[in-house]
Amino acid sequence: MNSITPPPSKYVSKAVIKRLPRYFRYLRELIRNGTLRISSKDLAAKMNITSSQIRQDLNCFGGFGQQGYGYNVMSLYMEISKILGLEENFKAIIVGMGNIGKALAGNPLFEKRGVSVSGLFDINPEIIGSEYAGLKIRPMTEIEDFCKQNSVSIAVLAVPKSEGESVAKFLYNECGIKGFWNFSNMELSNKIGDAIIENIHLGDTLMTLCYELSQRNKEK
Amino acid sequence: MNSITPPPSKYVSKAVIKRLPRYFRYLRELIRNGTLRISSKDLAAKMNITSSQIRQDLNCFGGFGQQGYGYNVMSLYMEISKILGLEENFKAIIVGMGNIGKALAGNPLFEKRGVSVSGLFDINPEIIGSEYAGLKIRPMTEIEDFCKQNSVSIAVLAVPKSEGESVAKFLYNECGIKGFWNFSNMELSNKIGDAIIENIHLGDTLMTLCYELSQRNKEK
Repeated sequence: MNSITPPPSKYVSKAVIKRLPRYFRYLRELIRNGTLRISSKDLAAKMNITSSQIRQDLNCFGGFGQQGYGYNVMSLYMEISKILGLEENFKAIIVGMGNIGKALAGNPLFEKRGVSVSGLFDINPEIIGSEYAGLKIRPMTEIEDFCKQNSVSIAVLAVPKSEGESVAKFLYNECGIKGFWNFSNMELSNKIGDAIIENIHLGDTLMTLCYELSQRNKEK
Repeated sequence: MNSITPPPSKYVSKAVIKRLPRYFRYLRELIRNGTLRISSKDLAAKMNITSSQIRQDLNCFGGFGQQGYGYNVMSLYMEISKILGLEENFKAIIVGMGNIGKALAGNPLFEKRGVSVSGLFDINPEIIGSEYAGLKIRPMTEIEDFCKQNSVSIAVLAVPKSEGESVAKFLYNECGIKGFWNFSNMELSNKIGDAIIENIHLGDTLMTLCYELSQRNKEK
């Protein structure tokens, strides 16, 4: 495999970046099944996209394949992990231990992406001090010290919508949090300084599903 | 407000449809704040897109605004709800009552979008028969009859990845389920007949967040 240094990120479009997690998932699957090498054609068929799309996407980062030999699955997987920042071992906290917080705490999705959840926080005195998924639920009064002592960079925001913005501002201004995985349903983009925000609106995809179903019904 | 019949769905691009849930959310917010009318310019500023994008999007459905008067917020909200199929009162079941299933059962996001969750299912004998969010958790052996008797069209798939495909196939083939809100992390597109599938890969957005954070760190 050629090892060409990827060009700086500014040359990579957001669209390509958005597709990388999908490559990551498929490559992980291939590794699990013991596949060592795959052609862009076979990978394309698996992922239901064109092989030229694959070649184009991966070329953005310098290209990882050798013509006629296909891609080395493990190398490609590791390169994509590196590009995605999964080797940086970001530390995260979960803020809000309601149903969503609980579904996320202890979820293997963090570990698979190299993110470690190091703290859980809530305001409910009835659950503070109890353990969940091997971690103690702490009061919000400890959050500032905790984030600083543990170099936390990501907050998983699982608080009610009404609290989303004020909690995020506090975490950004006082606790040094730079990235928000935002499940609060409060749209935070452009509201929290230069923080990086991924707003999760689960309901949006449910609506898309309803739309497609109702179209299907109309066609009948 | 002009009431022009929307053109058939085939003329509406997937990109526009994907943006409609966002309009829906912002309009809901405006209604809550008592705003009756809004110009495309003000709506654009709120949503952080251009006003020409808004006019273009809403024109796909026949246009709802009157020049110089802006949009009637309630009418626009109701029209978008109708387009999205939210007035059809789809019935859903949740299959798999682990952490994700629990976070979704009783979550107001269904009701807000006109979807009613009518049944919860699991294979774990320890929780079958117990109540959660006001509904009884039922055994999988009852799922076929339940779906048919209750005209269920959506399954929220919250089973482990290894079970995702087989459970989905059973629900599609035997239970008449046509839409899948798929949290199993098993990619189901093109695998389940002509079913409509929304695959939710929460981890993908976490990876995008890690990518942006690591780029930020490199720039420093």
